[in-house]
Amino acid sequence: MIKIGIIGGTGYTGVELLRLLAAHAQADLRVITSRGEAGKKVAELFPSLRGHLDLAFSAPDPKTLAGCDVVFSATPNGVAMTQARALLQSGVKLIDLAADFRLSDAAVWKTWYGMPHACPELLAEAVYGLPEMNRDRIKTARLIANPGCYPTAVQLGFLPLLEQGLVDTQHLIADAKSGVSGAGKKIEADLLFCEAADNMKAYAVPGHRHLPEICQGLDAACGTSVKLTFVPHLTPMIRGIHATLYARLTKPGTDLQALFEQRYAREPFVDVMPPGSHPETRAVRAANHCRLAVHQPQGGDIVVVLSVIDNLVKGAAGQAVQNMNILFGLDERTGLDHPAVLP
Amino acid sequence: MIKIGIIGGTGYTGVELLRLLAAHAQADLRVITSRGEAGKKVAELFPSLRGHLDLAFSAPDPKTLAGCDVVFSATPNGVAMTQARALLQSGVKLIDLAADFRLSDAAVWKTWYGMPHACPELLAEAVYGLPEMNRDRIKTARLIANPGCYPTAVQLGFLPLLEQGLVDTQHLIADAKSGVSGAGKKIEADLLFCEAADNMKAYAVPGHRHLPEICQGLDAACGTSVKLTFVPHLTPMIRGIHATLYARLTKPGTDLQALFEQRYAREPFVDVMPPGSHPETRAVRAANHCRLAVHQPQGGDIVVVLSVIDNLVKGAAGQAVQNMNILFGLDERTGLDHPAVLP
Amino acid sequence: MIKIGIIGGTGYTGVELLRLLAAHAQADLRVITSRGEAGKKVAELFPSLRGHLDLAFSAPDPKTLAGCDVVFSATPNGVAMTQARALLQSGVKLIDLAADFRLSDAAVWKTWYGMPHACPELLAEAVYGLPEMNRDRIKTARLIANPGCYPTAVQLGFLPLLEQGLVDTQHLIADAKSGVSGAGKKIEADLLFCEAADNMKAYAVPGHRHLPEICQGLDAACGTSVKLTFVPHLTPMIRGIHATLYARLTKPGTDLQALFEQRYAREPFVDVMPPGSHPETRAVRAANHCRLAVHQPQGGDIVVVLSVIDNLVKGAAGQAVQNMNILFGLDERTGLDHPAVLP
Amino acid sequence: MIKIGIIGGTGYTGVELLRLLAAHAQADLRVITSRGEAGKKVAELFPSLRGHLDLAFSAPDPKTLAGCDVVFSATPNGVAMTQARALLQSGVKLIDLAADFRLSDAAVWKTWYGMPHACPELLAEAVYGLPEMNRDRIKTARLIANPGCYPTAVQLGFLPLLEQGLVDTQHLIADAKSGVSGAGKKIEADLLFCEAADNMKAYAVPGHRHLPEICQGLDAACGTSVKLTFVPHLTPMIRGIHATLYARLTKPGTDLQALFEQRYAREPFVDVMPPGSHPETRAVRAANHCRLAVHQPQGGDIVVVLSVIDNLVKGAAGQAVQNMNILFGLDERTGLDHPAVLP
Repeated sequence: MIKIGIIGGTGYTGVELLRLLAAHAQADLRVITSRGEAGKKVAELFPSLRGHLDLAFSAPDPKTLAGCDVVFSATPNGVAMTQARALLQSGVKLIDLAADFRLSDAAVWKTWYGMPHACPELLAEAVYGLPEMNRDRIKTARLIANPGCYPTAVQLGFLPLLEQGLVDTQHLIADAKSGVSGAGKKIEADLLFCEAADNMKAYAVPGHRHLPEICQGLDAACGTSVKLTFVPHLTPMIRGIHATLYARLTKPGTDLQALFEQRYAREPFVDVMPPGSHPETRAVRAANHCRLAVHQPQGGDIVVVLSVIDNLVKGAAGQAVQNMNILFGLDERTGLDHPAVLP
Repeated sequence: MIKIGIIGGTGYTGVELLRLLAAHAQADLRVITSRGEAGKKVAELFPSLRGHLDLAFSAPDPKTLAGCDVVFSATPNGVAMTQARALLQSGVKLIDLAADFRLSDAAVWKTWYGMPHACPELLAEAVYGLPEMNRDRIKTARLIANPGCYPTAVQLGFLPLLEQGLVDTQHLIADAKSGVSGAGKKIEADLLFCEAADNMKAYAVPGHRHLPEICQGLDAACGTSVKLTFVPHLTPMIRGIHATLYARLTKPGTDLQALFEQRYAREPFVDVMPPGSHPETRAVRAANHCRLAVHQPQGGDIVVVLSVIDNLVKGAAGQAVQNMNILFGLDERTGLDHPAVLP
Repeated sequence: MIKIGIIGGTGYTGVELLRLLAAHAQADLRVITSRGEAGKKVAELFPSLRGHLDLAFSAPDPKTLAGCDVVFSATPNGVAMTQARALLQSGVKLIDLAADFRLSDAAVWKTWYGMPHACPELLAEAVYGLPEMNRDRIKTARLIANPGCYPTAVQLGFLPLLEQGLVDTQHLIADAKSGVSGAGKKIEADLLFCEAADNMKAYAVPGHRHLPEICQGLDAACGTSVKLTFVPHLTPMIRGIHATLYARLTKPGTDLQALFEQRYAREPFVDVMPPGSHPETRAVRAANHCRLAVHQPQGGDIVVVLSVIDNLVKGAAGQAVQNMNILFGLDERTGLDHPAVLP
Repeated sequence: MIKIGIIGGTGYTGVELLRLLAAHAQADLRVITSRGEAGKKVAELFPSLRGHLDLAFSAPDPKTLAGCDVVFSATPNGVAMTQARALLQSGVKLIDLAADFRLSDAAVWKTWYGMPHACPELLAEAVYGLPEMNRDRIKTARLIANPGCYPTAVQLGFLPLLEQGLVDTQHLIADAKSGVSGAGKKIEADLLFCEAADNMKAYAVPGHRHLPEICQGLDAACGTSVKLTFVPHLTPMIRGIHATLYARLTKPGTDLQALFEQRYAREPFVDVMPPGSHPETRAVRAANHCRLAVHQPQGGDIVVVLSVIDNLVKGAAGQAVQNMNILFGLDERTGLDHPAVLP
């Protein structure tokens, strides 16, 4: 059994992590910390967990966390970087679900997140936890930066094209639609039911924090500095990301369907759907899968990739568990191998 | 492993059964029939099952079904009763998720379902599959009538009060709100997104088919013929039933909270919440639990019981699997012991 | 033209009032105050009003308000009562959309709203602005307490029965379902999209502030002190209240359909639907109508009344405009005579 | 008063037309035909119209229609073209809300709509009813082809860029998200609440019927044959289209904000929002406006235009009424000048 701690589990990523770990045969959840909710039973905050989890939130205590094999940090951006050194020194593996260790360049991080990085020396060591890209490095990592939700959906969709150098890397477009839980459990006006329901809007068109994260991964895939136009949209659904990706083919004639199928043939959580498919977000609701389809409308030179994930699972907590499985040598599917909830 | 067949698995109850069985350690799904979809892969109809189920729908074949240990019938009302005799004769256990065997009186059945019953002689043998009421009879049954969704939520809420003779049985009120999937995957105008979204309405106020089913169970619980006003409402959500129950206390002074807690103390899937609670449907989304709260507003003589279930799980497929577990001597929670999906 | 001021127009009731007044031929909106948003164009906060309203929010200024014929107060509870005296003294008519003047008893008000009343001497003068009950008194009022949303739907449904003394007044039940905007534009966790969507729950079962308001009106209608069990539910829709009302008939034999039709024959905004109807909330979406249907299921002694309104229109801003029309001798339908938005 | 007839008013476009005409001071609705619903009161089918419309559906009768000044055809594709000749010969103006007269090339029409055109000789005469493009021709037209919903949103967003020759016309991208009512009131599985709610998917990526319609308009605007990748998405909302448009700037340095503002300065129903805006669909819900914002993310060479409309209003019935107003010399805003319904 893997001894597990969670720092900050009161948000949507936290409760999803709890849901997944509750059904994970090797997970031994020892501690979950929250300053604000210390002393309260987790199941009191999340009645969905009544009968599944008897634990209470506790105030953060370095000793308790140091006794864990792995700690998930599900705090807001900027918190994990203040705790990482101590945790790593005590021999704990750390999986950060926030953005603190996703960008390798501390200056870029500061630009997008508005604060200096607290432990830039760890950025080089941190492994970006997208298993389809970095599985081998994940196996031996001490510190894993769990990818963002948009970056997961967008990178998995673009990777095969970029790795093979098939498209114009200077005019990539990612039009992404996210369910509201992608914003976390923030108490903000925009996220109120009456603001978000029966409504669609783009946001952050001038620049979204996930842009540099996506570009960093795409750059690595193609060996050049890509230019991406990334437009996220707030969509009236609870979970799910639908990324619609556009690129101009510079080398026509490739069998794109075969390319995608081969790229992901051994990936347990990436499903390349048959030609002509239109994946829908509910086909991955509450599941750790990414489903992809690739189109070339009217046989023109624009390739369209459709990529769907559940932002709370493959886009957050599920991917974190997948990373834990890899870290500890378990079958990668352990605790994650259930079908999506449909309808 | 239990050899399982499913008749008619193309609706919402069917796909939910497939989702639950895919994660059930003892389930060996052998066959799933559908005349309309014969030959098509199940995962083609339900992409959520891609990677989890390689089976294709097949035309109904008595021999194949006869080789199963248990058959779930997830067809429209009136189909299972034409197949029950043959299945039982071949030694198969039958769990019918439709209404064919729920009412013990063939005349009442005909009145509410508009057709004569095809095998009235089996009605006496059929066991109404509400484990919290009939667990012992379920253990040895050949034929189980899986309860309706409204009846499950309403009966579980009223049972403790009626069994103890605490309320006026002639003026019971059940105001029930159901997600749209409660109507099944019918292609009807009322169930279109643009008709049902952002909208609330009562329906079938003059009389709903679940009324006699509920009354039959309540009658048995209190030994008299109850009178129930049952008003179902179509609610703009996919899953979930919220039943709000009202009864006049005739014997004041009982500790209702204690009564409910004791009644369900050993039930793995009925959760009596703390005093003052307001259970919400999402706290049981995709899970087999019923959560209850009991209130006595302003200390008056009206008791209010709040009862929530997921209509597709405890109200249909989950309860069917629970019944299968009981039938085959498994731990009742096998394959059903995962937390709800929240948010 | 009626010179109009609005105090506090940044919530949902405020923006709805602005929408209705923008299309009202006799409305001359002079000022809208908000401390927090002073200086900002109204259309900047509410882009739906771009092109319809060039006004900016201003800091509250007694002189400007004193120059109005009528002032709508759309502030949180407890604010209007601190401003009422001064406004009335300056000769302005005041329509309060909050709860400050709805209860005639200052002690009851304090009990439910948790603060002493700031001007109890005005409670006797204030007229409860339900036109179907108090039209004549509204005509000559200086101060109108605009009814709450639940109280509007519930009272209109019960009135005919109580006025005629047809039902057991000690066991009335109102099971009410409200869209989320009924809670106002509060930035609270419960009202987040991810908390309220695809979910149903009851709340405030031990006691909701609208209970004494409803009872006060029902008491007046039947001349006795009624007992009402009132259970509100949060429903995943933006607008709309569906009240399902239950009462035990003590005088059988009355033609209830005729009773309701006669009671509301001359009411421009109450629609008694044909026998057997199930009104839906979207049939009054964005409109000032209340639609009612009356049922007597299975011919028993329980009468069921279904009552739907749009909580922001007949339940708030529309009824306020209706009251203004009455106050100023206009046709009651002025600015309110448009059909509902469906779908 | 304009004497008006409607052919086929039982769908969503029909009921929206009825809602708008009910509040139109110059509209005299004489007849509304439906074979299927003949004899039934319109308000029985659409309870939202109770009290606003006393008309019943009638079987189509050439004489009655011939007595109208204008006839709106709100039938499925392929019907209006069989009736156009007779109506025009009787001196009636015809506004077709379906696609029959939108494409000027009968061969292209046949390719995309799967049937030969019934009156190709009228295609040259028909005026494409996008007032912002063709106002002068609309004034004197006999036959107006009311634009599709996607084409309205997409063309209004691209027009300024194409008219000025600022972008690469061979790689235009329109990523469009539509509410479910965009599909009409079709009784199809994909449009069921439980299929469409809490879900997002692209559809018709290989080719959608609105593609040639959009391209025809864009070709005219820039004088060349454009290439457009058009990806529509089904979005879980009732109304609203959000089109996100992408183009590569070939002539940098233009003040795009000024360009858009000037282009639409005199348009009553096109609102160019301030720089940095993100228009949302609810800001035009139930209103005839198109709201636009133009962005140039990170100062690169990709221009992003955000365009929102209500598909049933500016995308269908509202634009049809706008066309009628132009045809009959009324103020274009008559009956259409109300704010959007928000929230």
